[in-house]
Amino acid sequence: MRPSGRHLDEMRAVSIETGVMRHAEGSCLIKVGNTHVLCTASVEERTPPFLKNTGLGWVTAEYGMLPRATNTRNRREAAQGKQGGRTVEIQRLIGRSLRAGIDRSALGERQITVDCDVIQADGGTRCASITGGWVALRLAINTLMKTGAIKSDPMIGHVAAVSCGIYAGQPVLDLDYDEDSVAGVDGNFVMLDDGRLIEVQMSGETTVFGRSELGTMLDLAEKGMAGLVAAQKAAL
Amino acid sequence: MRPSGRHLDEMRAVSIETGVMRHAEGSCLIKVGNTHVLCTASVEERTPPFLKNTGLGWVTAEYGMLPRATNTRNRREAAQGKQGGRTVEIQRLIGRSLRAGIDRSALGERQITVDCDVIQADGGTRCASITGGWVALRLAINTLMKTGAIKSDPMIGHVAAVSCGIYAGQPVLDLDYDEDSVAGVDGNFVMLDDGRLIEVQMSGETTVFGRSELGTMLDLAEKGMAGLVAAQKAAL
Amino acid sequence: MRPSGRHLDEMRAVSIETGVMRHAEGSCLIKVGNTHVLCTASVEERTPPFLKNTGLGWVTAEYGMLPRATNTRNRREAAQGKQGGRTVEIQRLIGRSLRAGIDRSALGERQITVDCDVIQADGGTRCASITGGWVALRLAINTLMKTGAIKSDPMIGHVAAVSCGIYAGQPVLDLDYDEDSVAGVDGNFVMLDDGRLIEVQMSGETTVFGRSELGTMLDLAEKGMAGLVAAQKAAL
Amino acid sequence: MRPSGRHLDEMRAVSIETGVMRHAEGSCLIKVGNTHVLCTASVEERTPPFLKNTGLGWVTAEYGMLPRATNTRNRREAAQGKQGGRTVEIQRLIGRSLRAGIDRSALGERQITVDCDVIQADGGTRCASITGGWVALRLAINTLMKTGAIKSDPMIGHVAAVSCGIYAGQPVLDLDYDEDSVAGVDGNFVMLDDGRLIEVQMSGETTVFGRSELGTMLDLAEKGMAGLVAAQKAAL
Amino acid sequence: MRPSGRHLDEMRAVSIETGVMRHAEGSCLIKVGNTHVLCTASVEERTPPFLKNTGLGWVTAEYGMLPRATNTRNRREAAQGKQGGRTVEIQRLIGRSLRAGIDRSALGERQITVDCDVIQADGGTRCASITGGWVALRLAINTLMKTGAIKSDPMIGHVAAVSCGIYAGQPVLDLDYDEDSVAGVDGNFVMLDDGRLIEVQMSGETTVFGRSELGTMLDLAEKGMAGLVAAQKAAL
Amino acid sequence: MRPSGRHLDEMRAVSIETGVMRHAEGSCLIKVGNTHVLCTASVEERTPPFLKNTGLGWVTAEYGMLPRATNTRNRREAAQGKQGGRTVEIQRLIGRSLRAGIDRSALGERQITVDCDVIQADGGTRCASITGGWVALRLAINTLMKTGAIKSDPMIGHVAAVSCGIYAGQPVLDLDYDEDSVAGVDGNFVMLDDGRLIEVQMSGETTVFGRSELGTMLDLAEKGMAGLVAAQKAAL
Repeated sequence: MRPSGRHLDEMRAVSIETGVMRHAEGSCLIKVGNTHVLCTASVEERTPPFLKNTGLGWVTAEYGMLPRATNTRNRREAAQGKQGGRTVEIQRLIGRSLRAGIDRSALGERQITVDCDVIQADGGTRCASITGGWVALRLAINTLMKTGAIKSDPMIGHVAAVSCGIYAGQPVLDLDYDEDSVAGVDGNFVMLDDGRLIEVQMSGETTVFGRSELGTMLDLAEKGMAGLVAAQKAAL
Repeated sequence: MRPSGRHLDEMRAVSIETGVMRHAEGSCLIKVGNTHVLCTASVEERTPPFLKNTGLGWVTAEYGMLPRATNTRNRREAAQGKQGGRTVEIQRLIGRSLRAGIDRSALGERQITVDCDVIQADGGTRCASITGGWVALRLAINTLMKTGAIKSDPMIGHVAAVSCGIYAGQPVLDLDYDEDSVAGVDGNFVMLDDGRLIEVQMSGETTVFGRSELGTMLDLAEKGMAGLVAAQKAAL
Repeated sequence: MRPSGRHLDEMRAVSIETGVMRHAEGSCLIKVGNTHVLCTASVEERTPPFLKNTGLGWVTAEYGMLPRATNTRNRREAAQGKQGGRTVEIQRLIGRSLRAGIDRSALGERQITVDCDVIQADGGTRCASITGGWVALRLAINTLMKTGAIKSDPMIGHVAAVSCGIYAGQPVLDLDYDEDSVAGVDGNFVMLDDGRLIEVQMSGETTVFGRSELGTMLDLAEKGMAGLVAAQKAAL
Repeated sequence: MRPSGRHLDEMRAVSIETGVMRHAEGSCLIKVGNTHVLCTASVEERTPPFLKNTGLGWVTAEYGMLPRATNTRNRREAAQGKQGGRTVEIQRLIGRSLRAGIDRSALGERQITVDCDVIQADGGTRCASITGGWVALRLAINTLMKTGAIKSDPMIGHVAAVSCGIYAGQPVLDLDYDEDSVAGVDGNFVMLDDGRLIEVQMSGETTVFGRSELGTMLDLAEKGMAGLVAAQKAAL
Repeated sequence: MRPSGRHLDEMRAVSIETGVMRHAEGSCLIKVGNTHVLCTASVEERTPPFLKNTGLGWVTAEYGMLPRATNTRNRREAAQGKQGGRTVEIQRLIGRSLRAGIDRSALGERQITVDCDVIQADGGTRCASITGGWVALRLAINTLMKTGAIKSDPMIGHVAAVSCGIYAGQPVLDLDYDEDSVAGVDGNFVMLDDGRLIEVQMSGETTVFGRSELGTMLDLAEKGMAGLVAAQKAAL
Repeated sequence: MRPSGRHLDEMRAVSIETGVMRHAEGSCLIKVGNTHVLCTASVEERTPPFLKNTGLGWVTAEYGMLPRATNTRNRREAAQGKQGGRTVEIQRLIGRSLRAGIDRSALGERQITVDCDVIQADGGTRCASITGGWVALRLAINTLMKTGAIKSDPMIGHVAAVSCGIYAGQPVLDLDYDEDSVAGVDGNFVMLDDGRLIEVQMSGETTVFGRSELGTMLDLAEKGMAGLVAAQKAAL
């Protein structure tokens, strides 16, 4: 029934290749089917002004998409002179999600910026960004721990994200573009590897949904989550 | 336990005054406790370019906050030369929520812009904007139906929104600023009056949450929803 | 002869309600007929850089208009990414006018920002902003005097403003939108309550005017001024 | 008493050289003492959209200042990414003033843009811009009349402008920078050569003024006006 | 003598992988040592307005760099709200260079946009962009020729570019970052495969250079050019 | 053969008038035929942050063009809200060129900004800006040496620039607009008076060129250079 022939609860193939960027403290290229996102983590030994002398660190994220990541070319945001609303929304979500997996006092007064640049898009770019961004962050923090800059591991657990939605009347896991563009309901679940939730975003712009459907999608998300955490572990 | 002395499942007083703006096709001032939002709906007999000749209408929203709506003055976004990420995120949410309650083909090729301007803020401005914005939209559509511009009612049901969160370890309904600023988890439920969900946004930046807590918050949201719909009906 | 049936020298009804904003050090809602402006004064214990260590304070103003304050919706300036020329011109006028009524050395090294947000517009918004803005400023300074932050009253007198113009060939007081949009000549007089002038702005884009007409308009302005000062006193 | 040794009612030397720009339909370099402004008028055979099919023409103005026109270098507005509030205010004044001297229906559906670029500044740049801008406009219209594009002269009379202010307690004519920077009151009178007023802008940011002082300044302005019109006539 | 141990006239290893982007009409990933640039060509069946009805096509280019392509993270241009001067300069060069290799009348009234996004930077990104961008363009034009949209090949020859400079007093070919950052003179030669020149940009900000050195660098460029054209041919 | 009747190797008349700006530390008006550029040098006793405590000074340049410098009016960059790509490219070239003629350590920790404002344009504005900008810089440095702020002359030699191109198949010197707008190849040579090269920019967007043509253009540039240096010497 799904355009890709996948089962309702079947994720696309996930692969994460680390160390792809020569300069970054942590980096990976995550592929979730045809969605490819390059994630880098950059460490700076200073925090934003509002955290000065608090002993707390900061993790933030930026998101971008190459103009021809999609089927028709999008205008380059740098040329347009501003980031679109969708970009702003996504990078705020990535930042919040990654911060939720960090003990900011163990991180200490430094900032890590996670850049997620979509090389190719086929649905689910924000989830892939969170899942891959966490790997880049993990690698950067490993580096800081090896040099002794950080004493105890500030990472609380694996953070990953997966999309669910209602496609052709059925709850499905991990929508690709063909599904996403017509799904009545879709959204994202960001979770820790122990199953606790960090963020739930479910939106039914063209079809509304009931509590039981939300429950089914949560079940799907938990299933998808297991695969994503496994892929993260395999990569590290 | 709550700073305001409210019960865990108790909303603040809600009042909606209609017809407060002389020029707008629909308008109201919604007060949810000390959060006051002025909502207007403006009708234009044209759609955005991407809907030309589709027979479909559009509902969009813009959100703003007066500089001194809050305890310390915020810089005016017009003076800063751009809308902040939070503003963009909120107005996209309001727009999606109101569109979910509309049959856009019954609306016909016209656009209704709902402006939500926060006069005074005490937590929950986006929920108040959706709840009040729906009333302004309802009034504007009533006008279009009276003049015969629209034949059959395009509104599917009442749309309203309420926030829930985990404050001091307990799920609570309708957070005010004192709660919101320290809540480990908070989010918003946008619903139709028949209980179906339009949007769920739950975020745990400093504390993560489990499925059962999500369930409790959904129960609270359903309770709050009943009161909001009653206030909308009373106002019309 | 006037669309509203008013006499040539008759102002619209003026009302000023104070304390309308919970957070601001001073606030009022001024209504001049159907023109409604929300004015707030916000105190900051720092001055702009150019006044550092001069012992002088600063009063500045910002002006905005809700998108649907007028008959057809205006684009939101924050969304356009800049304040229009008219907005800039008006807020500079409000700032200069209020500063003229202040002894900046008695104010001390602090800044008060007066925000004037037009909720509903029917002509004369800049004059209502000055008149109401002065009340908000007065209240904020009263607060500073009560706490002892300011020792002697820095306010020189009441500052208020009124528009005059030539409508249908006759000098008239306090133009509403119906008059303003067709007046050959119009302008604004900002005055102190002792009759001295702070600012005269008279512009004849479509009809020029003579010195005697300027004199007549000054007479009208003095008359209007008396009523505005009375309304300010009644409100305080 | 004046820093320049001039009498209270004495203008600086005024010279206007025409035809200084090879490409423009009309141009002049006006010098009022050490204030030098290059004015050009550019004709386009189309109007702004709001005048389409009205038979009316448009005159508009833009104002700029070279970065080193003043004693210390100002940042280039193009590099800052926006025109400052002062620039916007001045170019709106120039545009209104020149339009007041034109019968826009005799001009026909075309637009003339008058650019006033300050090469060197020593006070009174907006007045020099209006006086010189009118000469550029006159020359451009002469050209249009010679080619037969315009049948009857749309220019109602000479438009010129002069500043007055209260310096060291005395009303004075044509303030230079040394006076302007300390004057308690200053402003501009834009007039037709028959003595009628187009715009009066008088501002007393640090000192207020009375009606009799306004009268004295009007007398001074009329005197200055005669000299400016003579200089315009000499140049043409 | 060179940090990399290369000979003075030795280029870094060059590889070009085509078809790396699923959606683009033409794409390649070019690697010149550690400089990696992703190039895509996007076809649109419309030209810029200034070419309407001329029968001529257009080729344009945009250039970007991922924030962590370099050793320290650069601010994202989209977040800064504008493209920097260097970016603008580079993308104009790429566009001019590629247009020089095209018969725009054989291309017909369509536009091809070549996006060059630097994934990793180690000097010479603009030259790699031109060399790789030409391959993407070639592939996109091949597609247009296969579908019959273009009848005769509009490409005049291979376009490629190589940098030369004076490092430690010696003319060298293909500078990497270690050389580029200290070179007294450096620049770029854009050429056709028949040896004719399209663009010469040689700049000596810290050391000037003589005609004979320019000649030596031209010799080096011709040598490098041969290798680049061979790599292009191998990739196609 | 040339539209102006000049020989292939003949420059336009060059004149440089110094001291034309009352406020600037150095200034001149350079005329190369009908191309007129006003150049000023402004000294600031501080460097950009990246040079703090290095002992090195900085020379930078900004370029602008009056809206009606050209045959049809260009939009004012300040009004458009950004500098165009061509402007950015030119001002970076001017800055690099002038820095190449300076010993920045002899200049000491100060910044000189050279503003080049094109009053009238007829081709070759960037070359005229460099040639005239050098004179303004020379005068500003003379002032600094007279006051003793600078001990030893930081200027290495005369810097000037000239354009060459291939017009109607022939290499020509100093293209005017009529030639420039149709030339197949054109570019600029920036040189020191001893014949060494600072920058070579040669671009063949519509026609490519060979090494021998580059050689001929270098010969022409050397010839033109002699005249420009003579004009600079005459002016000082």
